[in-house]
Amino acid sequence: MVTTDADLDDGTPESDLAVARATDTRPIEEVAGDLGLTPEDIEPRGEGIAKLTQGAVRSATAGDVDGTTVLVTGMTPTPKGEGKTVTTVGLGQALAGLGESTTVAIREPSLGPVFGIKGGAAGGGRSQVLPMEAINLHFTGDIHALTAAHDLIAAALDNHLHQGNELEIDVRRVDWPRALDVNDRALRETVVGLGGPARGVPREDEFVITAASELTAVLGLASDLEDLKARIARIVLAEDADGEPVTPADLGVTGAVAALLRDAFRPNLVQTVEGVPALVHGGPFANIAHGTNTLVADRVGASLSEFLVTEAGFGADLGAEKFAHIVAREGIVPEVAVVVATVRGAKRHGLEMWPTDFDALAEPDADAVRAGVANLRRHVEIVESFGIPAVVAINVFPDDTESELAALEEELTQDGIAVARSTAYRDGGDGAIDLAERVRDLAGTGEFAPLYDVDEPVREKIDTVAREVYGADGVEYVDGADDDVDRLEEWGYGDLPVCLSKTPYSFSDDASLTGVPTGWTLTVREVTPSAGAGFLVAKTADVMTMPGLPAEPAAEGIDVDADGDVSGLF
Amino acid sequence: MVTTDADLDDGTPESDLAVARATDTRPIEEVAGDLGLTPEDIEPRGEGIAKLTQGAVRSATAGDVDGTTVLVTGMTPTPKGEGKTVTTVGLGQALAGLGESTTVAIREPSLGPVFGIKGGAAGGGRSQVLPMEAINLHFTGDIHALTAAHDLIAAALDNHLHQGNELEIDVRRVDWPRALDVNDRALRETVVGLGGPARGVPREDEFVITAASELTAVLGLASDLEDLKARIARIVLAEDADGEPVTPADLGVTGAVAALLRDAFRPNLVQTVEGVPALVHGGPFANIAHGTNTLVADRVGASLSEFLVTEAGFGADLGAEKFAHIVAREGIVPEVAVVVATVRGAKRHGLEMWPTDFDALAEPDADAVRAGVANLRRHVEIVESFGIPAVVAINVFPDDTESELAALEEELTQDGIAVARSTAYRDGGDGAIDLAERVRDLAGTGEFAPLYDVDEPVREKIDTVAREVYGADGVEYVDGADDDVDRLEEWGYGDLPVCLSKTPYSFSDDASLTGVPTGWTLTVREVTPSAGAGFLVAKTADVMTMPGLPAEPAAEGIDVDADGDVSGLF
Repeated sequence: MVTTDADLDDGTPESDLAVARATDTRPIEEVAGDLGLTPEDIEPRGEGIAKLTQGAVRSATAGDVDGTTVLVTGMTPTPKGEGKTVTTVGLGQALAGLGESTTVAIREPSLGPVFGIKGGAAGGGRSQVLPMEAINLHFTGDIHALTAAHDLIAAALDNHLHQGNELEIDVRRVDWPRALDVNDRALRETVVGLGGPARGVPREDEFVITAASELTAVLGLASDLEDLKARIARIVLAEDADGEPVTPADLGVTGAVAALLRDAFRPNLVQTVEGVPALVHGGPFANIAHGTNTLVADRVGASLSEFLVTEAGFGADLGAEKFAHIVAREGIVPEVAVVVATVRGAKRHGLEMWPTDFDALAEPDADAVRAGVANLRRHVEIVESFGIPAVVAINVFPDDTESELAALEEELTQDGIAVARSTAYRDGGDGAIDLAERVRDLAGTGEFAPLYDVDEPVREKIDTVAREVYGADGVEYVDGADDDVDRLEEWGYGDLPVCLSKTPYSFSDDASLTGVPTGWTLTVREVTPSAGAGFLVAKTADVMTMPGLPAEPAAEGIDVDADGDVSGLF
Repeated sequence: MVTTDADLDDGTPESDLAVARATDTRPIEEVAGDLGLTPEDIEPRGEGIAKLTQGAVRSATAGDVDGTTVLVTGMTPTPKGEGKTVTTVGLGQALAGLGESTTVAIREPSLGPVFGIKGGAAGGGRSQVLPMEAINLHFTGDIHALTAAHDLIAAALDNHLHQGNELEIDVRRVDWPRALDVNDRALRETVVGLGGPARGVPREDEFVITAASELTAVLGLASDLEDLKARIARIVLAEDADGEPVTPADLGVTGAVAALLRDAFRPNLVQTVEGVPALVHGGPFANIAHGTNTLVADRVGASLSEFLVTEAGFGADLGAEKFAHIVAREGIVPEVAVVVATVRGAKRHGLEMWPTDFDALAEPDADAVRAGVANLRRHVEIVESFGIPAVVAINVFPDDTESELAALEEELTQDGIAVARSTAYRDGGDGAIDLAERVRDLAGTGEFAPLYDVDEPVREKIDTVAREVYGADGVEYVDGADDDVDRLEEWGYGDLPVCLSKTPYSFSDDASLTGVPTGWTLTVREVTPSAGAGFLVAKTADVMTMPGLPAEPAAEGIDVDADGDVSGLF
């Protein structure tokens, strides 16, 4: 049904764009048909792209979720990533190949990284979603809608200050930045409102990339438009003179902000290289937020197909933990998880290296791989601690040696851990058939349970994640974080789940500690409310919420020709 | 073929949204068919909205422009506007009603004003374009693409400073702001790059609303994607240590910026309430830029239909003058112009009032209307000075008295000026049939000629506009504007047309001067290059390029319900 002309049989990975261009895609109406959706249930948004209508979303999410949710997570990643999205797409294609109706759900790429380092992100090779150029460049505008909605709140707040500040907002305690979907370090710390009385009230301000906006998390967790409005209304923007929270509801802009997001709320339907339905929707950060595609996309996918394959950010300590404690509470419970691992990733832990030390990983070293498996094993344990059965997917790279791959498999198999190699990048669904079969076998064999109850005190919830997930000996609160917790409990937010923000490059809060660090204490520096999203963010470090461009940005290699064909997205 | 159920027969103007909701629109494929476009020539972007494909744009703009271009301009406006867009849409409907194949072309609404004062802008009543909610909220994302592209250039520039500043950019002479599509006065003057070496190089910076970005003017005048790239490449962003211009080409981001704009370049097809094809595309400011919808939309419309009705910003002194000297040079030459006038607009000049003094205009006063006609007459003369025949459209408001309307008509008719009342807001195309007949009769009876040649010295071109259009006695250059002109001529930009930025509320550079001011000198304070757009901007005042929100923003009245229906866009 889908033909790919690009010849990858010689083992040379061709560019993602070459594969994308060589693929004959199915009409999007036909893809929608796989989900039981009629042409009236979708609104086309350019070739191969559609948004579900509001009515279709409501119908699809009205009843119980019957499909099986497969969560793709990973080991502690290197900064280049271990190929979770490729594995997610490849697994979805493999399940479809086995005759299971399947939907893939992943996050939308952010423009900042596209023009920074990555040059595009929607899987890769024969396991990517299409049309890759459009998906990487604006797509259906959801992230732009979030930017506009975020900055409308900011403008309303500064306008309120300017018009007399009736709410008595404390300008020193405004915690609502401005947002742009760009990598722009010069906007990390700014002063706005300069230039005299016609130009607002001067105050310090920062800009975050839109993916780091709480609004992106809000959209990601809203179950319907009413819930979206309720969440927007309770976002904490600032404190007033009495130390009480100021919200968008106080500013009177809840409805306007929701109106800006009404279309962004509806999931985007595209397809994989092999024509499998894919919902590409939302994309909050995986440290200060929960880091997965929207709940509504998951609900639609799991309702309209037998299998939903969805992805969480970073390793299981961050993405899977947040999925279990934040997303699963909203009704999407994984019945099986895939922990994506690579030879390179394991080797880093065996060699005890700084995460960005890529050159040192080039030498084949099966012993280092064996030594590094401890890290991977621990990620599997974390997943299983939630009652979710796990299978490790070894994402094979062209320069992996057979001895390294075998070492990795052997170590895992010895421990009784299910494992399957995936060559989904090169081979598409065919490269993930073993993985799909193991996923199908394991699905539903566990019983999901979170590690804490939301009504426990905040410090206990943080303690549980620190000890039981990260393996810390305990938690230390510094820089006023203790006061933060007290204030949040006073404000009535004590019964929200916690969202710990920590480096993804170690189980610990120190990126240089490889393997499974022990004998350390988690340091919490600040606890802030994401009351709209519905969690409390406990920060263990100064979190980077606005990336910078490198010395040679990917932008310099991107071009468009007279026909509108884009190059440089790889 | 199109039915409107809203009952406006009692003379009570119903809300634009009510009319919009009560209208059964045609399938967009059928509307495209009116232009000879097949379903393969358009890409649907939600119900009733399509983008022309790149191929269709190229075909449509390949040959000569055969259709008749009708330019809708106006008298000196009041801040509430005289109804130019309503008249444009109504006239298009009337021409279609007379059996002429017609396309309407107007600008895209900007989100800033939608949430600020206006609450929506796409014509009104029975002369608006549909679907009004989508057009007012993100539409097809063109303005968001411009924001992203604009800010990518800014990020690349600041990144260049941060990475060592090889081009030796003078941080004191960066003249590329950041852009956001929001009304946010607190961003008018900022300092960015604070917080130490990891956060860029500190410098003063400002934000403009996206409509004021030069990139919006660039997109508005580009003839194809190659031309778009050429224009982007030559934008002047800053000066280097030697005082030479620094451009996006120097930063290596021309291709990436164009890639972000490739879809925004393609016109958006929608329809009027009466089902007439409308291209809603682009929207640069009408003071620091040329202030009309994109050239490519005009070229498509004038090529694929017998009549193109398009609109320019503000009065004829600004919009029509810029159309004649900037847009017409690119191949779209108006064969007839409509000067939109109102009783209220004329009365303001008769009463010699400050433009925002709305209450004083409520009293019927036919004598004041007569006294104010001088202003209107002068706008007609300006249009005719370009060899374009003109007809005045009196846009009738519900509270206009017959004696005032008759006075206005009588004064104009006495002078031999063609005039027609338009009730297009209330009656749609039927309310503009007289106007349409006069437009059809006059079209092509003149011979277009600009007032200056581009190869004249810059000061001569400015002088021509000041004297022959504005009626000034001469031009005074202050605050270094003389040096600006010298530098721009040195840089080789002397042969560009000039774009004068002046208050729209008077022919003069003083908003309080009504009628036809005489005995005054135009003061030019700064002359800057818009080398990408292809003109030099001569500023007569501190131009507001970032609006603020009022004390009670329109945002507070906007909402969305559980079905996704938006209210508060009026």
